[in-house]
Amino acid sequence: MDPNTSGLVQKLAEAGQSHLLQFWKELSTKEQQELFQDLQGMDFLEINKFFKSAMETSSSTKHEKMDGRMEPVPREVLGSVTRDRESLKDWEAKGLDCIGQSKVAVLLLAGGQGTRLGFSHPKGMYDVGLPSHKTLFQIQAERILKLQQLAKQKTTVNCCVPWYIMTSGRTMESTKNFFSEHKYFGLDKDNVIFFQQGMLPAMDYNGKIILESQGKLSMAPDGNGGLYRALGNQGILDDMQRRGVKFIHVYCVDNILVKVADPTFIGFCVQKGADCGAKVVEKTNPTEAVGVVCKVDGRYQVVEYSEITLATAEKRSSDGRLMFSAGNVANHFFSFSFLRDVVQEYEPQLQHHVAQKKIPFVDVQGHIITPEKPNGIKMEKFVFDIFQFANKKRTFVVYEVLREDEFSPLKNADAQDGKDTPTTARHALMSLHHRWVLNAGGHFIDENGRRVPAIPSISRDGAAGSVTDDGNRNLKDGTDLPIKCEISPLVSYAGEGLEKLVKGRELQATLMIDEHGVHELVKNGV
Amino acid sequence: MDPNTSGLVQKLAEAGQSHLLQFWKELSTKEQQELFQDLQGMDFLEINKFFKSAMETSSSTKHEKMDGRMEPVPREVLGSVTRDRESLKDWEAKGLDCIGQSKVAVLLLAGGQGTRLGFSHPKGMYDVGLPSHKTLFQIQAERILKLQQLAKQKTTVNCCVPWYIMTSGRTMESTKNFFSEHKYFGLDKDNVIFFQQGMLPAMDYNGKIILESQGKLSMAPDGNGGLYRALGNQGILDDMQRRGVKFIHVYCVDNILVKVADPTFIGFCVQKGADCGAKVVEKTNPTEAVGVVCKVDGRYQVVEYSEITLATAEKRSSDGRLMFSAGNVANHFFSFSFLRDVVQEYEPQLQHHVAQKKIPFVDVQGHIITPEKPNGIKMEKFVFDIFQFANKKRTFVVYEVLREDEFSPLKNADAQDGKDTPTTARHALMSLHHRWVLNAGGHFIDENGRRVPAIPSISRDGAAGSVTDDGNRNLKDGTDLPIKCEISPLVSYAGEGLEKLVKGRELQATLMIDEHGVHELVKNGV
Repeated sequence: MDPNTSGLVQKLAEAGQSHLLQFWKELSTKEQQELFQDLQGMDFLEINKFFKSAMETSSSTKHEKMDGRMEPVPREVLGSVTRDRESLKDWEAKGLDCIGQSKVAVLLLAGGQGTRLGFSHPKGMYDVGLPSHKTLFQIQAERILKLQQLAKQKTTVNCCVPWYIMTSGRTMESTKNFFSEHKYFGLDKDNVIFFQQGMLPAMDYNGKIILESQGKLSMAPDGNGGLYRALGNQGILDDMQRRGVKFIHVYCVDNILVKVADPTFIGFCVQKGADCGAKVVEKTNPTEAVGVVCKVDGRYQVVEYSEITLATAEKRSSDGRLMFSAGNVANHFFSFSFLRDVVQEYEPQLQHHVAQKKIPFVDVQGHIITPEKPNGIKMEKFVFDIFQFANKKRTFVVYEVLREDEFSPLKNADAQDGKDTPTTARHALMSLHHRWVLNAGGHFIDENGRRVPAIPSISRDGAAGSVTDDGNRNLKDGTDLPIKCEISPLVSYAGEGLEKLVKGRELQATLMIDEHGVHELVKNGV
Repeated sequence: MDPNTSGLVQKLAEAGQSHLLQFWKELSTKEQQELFQDLQGMDFLEINKFFKSAMETSSSTKHEKMDGRMEPVPREVLGSVTRDRESLKDWEAKGLDCIGQSKVAVLLLAGGQGTRLGFSHPKGMYDVGLPSHKTLFQIQAERILKLQQLAKQKTTVNCCVPWYIMTSGRTMESTKNFFSEHKYFGLDKDNVIFFQQGMLPAMDYNGKIILESQGKLSMAPDGNGGLYRALGNQGILDDMQRRGVKFIHVYCVDNILVKVADPTFIGFCVQKGADCGAKVVEKTNPTEAVGVVCKVDGRYQVVEYSEITLATAEKRSSDGRLMFSAGNVANHFFSFSFLRDVVQEYEPQLQHHVAQKKIPFVDVQGHIITPEKPNGIKMEKFVFDIFQFANKKRTFVVYEVLREDEFSPLKNADAQDGKDTPTTARHALMSLHHRWVLNAGGHFIDENGRRVPAIPSISRDGAAGSVTDDGNRNLKDGTDLPIKCEISPLVSYAGEGLEKLVKGRELQATLMIDEHGVHELVKNGV
């Protein structure tokens, strides 16, 4: 294959990217074919434009003076599970109505690779070690099923919550296969729609695309903000329109507690006539590594934790809370009309964020080098960067929830620092379900028949009402948490409907409640 | 030695504890001497009384109905670093005045053994791996030295903060030796006073003292509330009186961030005319394993986390915060007069708390058995149980501080669940000192000379402005935290006085500031 005849050489020359063919002669025929394919599909002039624009924005000193331009989220656009308790039931009912009318879709951002987790498959396939060993995908699928069921109980007709799953080139095939093998976890396969975000090449500081090997460009997914371009060019917007979808819940795969299509969040947003809503958790520690939702120059945006000065992070309101306390957890609500306008009109205005990276590259001799210092950039768009377009006639709202009920991300392997790991995720879910049981009137007893306190003590020497800790946190029955309790989403979405199963009962861990009933899995002789 | 001639046999018979001599004939002479010594020193009738009273209280259903009797701490007795910012400087000045007049003493509870930590020495000797490798004892000693220095700057005369250190039988010798070997870390040895709390035997459910081996009673320290009895019978109260001590700061050894003799806390308490003050941190997660300071039946007390129902733990005030949010961190203020009244009058009213335990015991054949189920109790008094006496004419106050500035306990080994470990303690201190530098106008730069954000990103592939994470959280320069920074207490007690050292400077981690100056410990070639 002669790259000349296709005009590829000319295309590359125009864009100053001719170096990409420097090892052409050394490549095998197969490698040449693959490289040709990769290069054909790319718009180099556009990529150069992205590079130029991204470098300009990144070098701008604008964000260094951000402090003076930041304002907190005003109370009138905030809904809070702790501060608006009297409104929650109405919002929930409203949200369930919308779900019942098949107006709500769910959109899962699942393009990431989970490298920090050390897991070589799509993160949604991860099993955090629950008693059921369900993966994140299954848990989320069952929450959708349960919601459809709850809505049907109210309306008496079937409804549908379409599930759009955005993958990247690296995760598409394995994700689709996984769902297929598991029969879509009980969902109708026509209502589970996969699509793929774009990729962008890594560039060096001179705007030259980096080759990671003699025949391969260094590519990476274009950021979770690549969603909007993908919604357009993959036909997802059209699919939503056909289905009559009015409201979309966007969320990340790695939160084991995520309330998929949370009716209360949706109802709150719809009640406020919002086009754009951000679910947040309260940031209480100034140096927590979480972005904050706020206003900058009068427009809503997320200020990333690496962009905030300490002085601003430590600011407090008169009530003593942090002034910038709306911690972004990548959990959003969009009206269809707003999303459509973003895709069709505003998307090109989204800036690429630049991350300076140490990118493995191939040198002129053809050797692959891993640099010691950053040698180039990766460009990404961020999903929350469309908040800025929710101004003037468009309404933006913020919904604050409790971490212990709704946020426990999976980011690191268990070998690491103990934060956001499979263990913390598993514990968070079982702790939540333990509380559901107590709040539904159930009681837990230990192996001696004694009631276990709501917050059991961890004791090293077998104090009663506690769980034995032999010093290695391997508790007597091999568990690593005082009360092991898991309730299938098919039984309860958010703790509702459990009284008839547990009220007044004394139950022993490990407690599992699923569609077949209440199971106490007690190990004998341990 | 014939136990009969000393009346020991009769004493034991009167108290129903004759079984303690059942293996007398099998013991060596030395063992007999030791057992005799142990038994001679004990008041068995008193111990029986403790047992009876403890079992009665513990079986009482009173605490099961505690919920309806609990009230939160009223705003008027609360001082808060976030909600009373305008008062902090005055309180601090007042406290420093009292320190300058040698009216303030510090009392360290250091009788615990740190078994969960897996450390076979007194916990204060622990080195959490700071760049300086200082132990907890040294850090606390240096904070006292610095305060004495700060007070002297204001008053121009020397002052003294006596340091009373309560150990248990198991920690006394090693603690005294450690201080002696380290020359009291620069303190005057006459102002460091060691004393020992009492011990109590473990009892089975029938009130029989348990033998842990044929010639040894199963003994344990009598709880941190054993403080009051020890203050009396070890002459500490008299020593305080002689020195003119008016105010006492009581704290636990295992908090690396503890503000020893915190002037702001002391000044707040003195300003309010308080006899009794509890320093707390805000509890934000309902199921956090921390006791809460509150009122029960109109009297102040700490309700332990294992005593609180979930419903009560989850209650919220109208502002959305938890209703019972005053998390007890074992950090107290007492006026001397109140302490004296407790020791001389109220102490016998303190109830022993009962912990049901699996206590290794020797059976009738003389074999040592470790039971599978709890077989007896340990009795302990708790230091905060004197809050109940701060009623009527006595004033009780609560002082709420920030965890990130003042509370990072050391409880578990690093092999365990990542919470309250040497790593979290070390990180907490270095993070605090990092913030001190930023707030004093200093800046941190990375090895490429680029400014590091206040909250750096952790990146796996070497993004600039972040620190490389090779997936094992062993960052490029072998550190396990983005910014390693340690400031000796001899230089700064709480972040003051650093501008002249760091303002306007660009500094590289690892940064150490001590009495010799500012040191940037940068590793070469890594």
